[in-house]
Amino acid sequence: MKKFENKRIAFLGPRGTFTEEALLSAVLVKEENLVPCSTVYDVIKAIEKNETENGIVPIENSIEGSVNATLDVLTFEANDLLIEREIIAPIRHRLIVKPGVKIKDVTSVISHPQATAQCRKYLAKNLSGVEVLAANSTADAVRRVAEKNGCVAAIGTTLAAKLYGLEVLEADIEDFQDNKTRFVLLGKEATKKTDRDKTSIVVFIYEDRPGSLLQILQEFAYRYINLTKIQSRPTKKGLGDYCFWIDMEGHIEDEAISSAIKCLKCKFRAVKTLGSYPMARK
Amino acid sequence: MKKFENKRIAFLGPRGTFTEEALLSAVLVKEENLVPCSTVYDVIKAIEKNETENGIVPIENSIEGSVNATLDVLTFEANDLLIEREIIAPIRHRLIVKPGVKIKDVTSVISHPQATAQCRKYLAKNLSGVEVLAANSTADAVRRVAEKNGCVAAIGTTLAAKLYGLEVLEADIEDFQDNKTRFVLLGKEATKKTDRDKTSIVVFIYEDRPGSLLQILQEFAYRYINLTKIQSRPTKKGLGDYCFWIDMEGHIEDEAISSAIKCLKCKFRAVKTLGSYPMARK
Repeated sequence: MKKFENKRIAFLGPRGTFTEEALLSAVLVKEENLVPCSTVYDVIKAIEKNETENGIVPIENSIEGSVNATLDVLTFEANDLLIEREIIAPIRHRLIVKPGVKIKDVTSVISHPQATAQCRKYLAKNLSGVEVLAANSTADAVRRVAEKNGCVAAIGTTLAAKLYGLEVLEADIEDFQDNKTRFVLLGKEATKKTDRDKTSIVVFIYEDRPGSLLQILQEFAYRYINLTKIQSRPTKKGLGDYCFWIDMEGHIEDEAISSAIKCLKCKFRAVKTLGSYPMARK
Repeated sequence: MKKFENKRIAFLGPRGTFTEEALLSAVLVKEENLVPCSTVYDVIKAIEKNETENGIVPIENSIEGSVNATLDVLTFEANDLLIEREIIAPIRHRLIVKPGVKIKDVTSVISHPQATAQCRKYLAKNLSGVEVLAANSTADAVRRVAEKNGCVAAIGTTLAAKLYGLEVLEADIEDFQDNKTRFVLLGKEATKKTDRDKTSIVVFIYEDRPGSLLQILQEFAYRYINLTKIQSRPTKKGLGDYCFWIDMEGHIEDEAISSAIKCLKCKFRAVKTLGSYPMARK
């Protein structure tokens, strides 16, 4: 993707996260243009304040499901941002140690609790009984292994192992092998129609009106629009008060899609459009 | 709920978690009958192996949305378990310190990354620049404050503060005040019909058959069954391969519900029923 070659791109950091690894796998970008941010919220604010032209955040994992923090920030906090691309990347967890450390020497394992959970079976089999420590991100876990004395192992990316001069002791230690994450590249530019696009919207329904979801789905079914994702999210006002995040096949310039969105706007409290973008190959 | 007074109940531990706090707020249970488990998976296995009669796990938070780990364990790993009750409890985050420590002395904050994220605005305003450390649970964070030297603060429950002899320095530090979690109490006994019940099922669809969700919803709409939750979950075989978790109003002995489930079983790959239980008051 040459388009992003000279753009500054904010990403969910610190350096060495899966998000950075996914970005580098898909986009030509200069190292000096990479801007690590500590939360998804900071990524979108960096774009909104023009500190960067683009930003990348994880949105859905094949095992964990939607990344709620991202859906919520895009739903409730982002202004005039659009999804310009989607990137799907495999999530491969590595057991990372200081050079020379062997698995029998490892006394504790450190990672983000979600990564630890995804390697539960591996840890039970190969590192049973060792202490499991928590970190704020997998990259942070790797950094701490580099700084600590003793035989601590981190669960993280190959990229992070390289950044901190550490060694991958074991690759692909995740319980489910088909572990993939979908990331979205955000910006302010509408993306031109291609032959295979997706469009994302959020529909805010009126509270306590049963059958809303059925009504929404019927608007799409009537126009033969295929949905690739539908996710209810609480509006943070209380249990049972929802909005719906919807991804569909097609571009917002398609007659069927623009007409469906027009009808949804007439029927429901609000519709937020989050852009059309080329569909990633799985 | 007298029914559970003499039952052994497994819960998502360690001692002092929000899950334990919610259990004690709703159920009379003897302390010696409380069995802390380290994962949701361990809770259901404790019941299946008859180590306890019941177990309690979080299933949905008003801010974060569904607890994916729980939905997945109940969908893919639980055998013959039923939801016997639901319990809704407020989630109030407390800033917890050693007795006498003042906020200006606090040099680092420790909690589960999700709890830290829920107190983002408070931390930015009142503890800007202090180091944020990660723990495997809020209860674990509180335990570590009790063990550590220096002025570390944990984010956790009042119950945990009591258990470890610590002090609540500030209450209700969460960004969103209407932060509630719904917990489910699991067991092996079918629950009798009351005047206000809910029923939970999981529908496994055939892959790549568009319109499945619409078909499912129509079965319920046709019978005037009100759905209180619908959540797609990946089947862990790859992005785009889903099943649907559905909560509805009514008891499985109601003619409309048993008939809807019968029809869904004819049309789709499989339907797993997870029990009927009295609806919690919000």
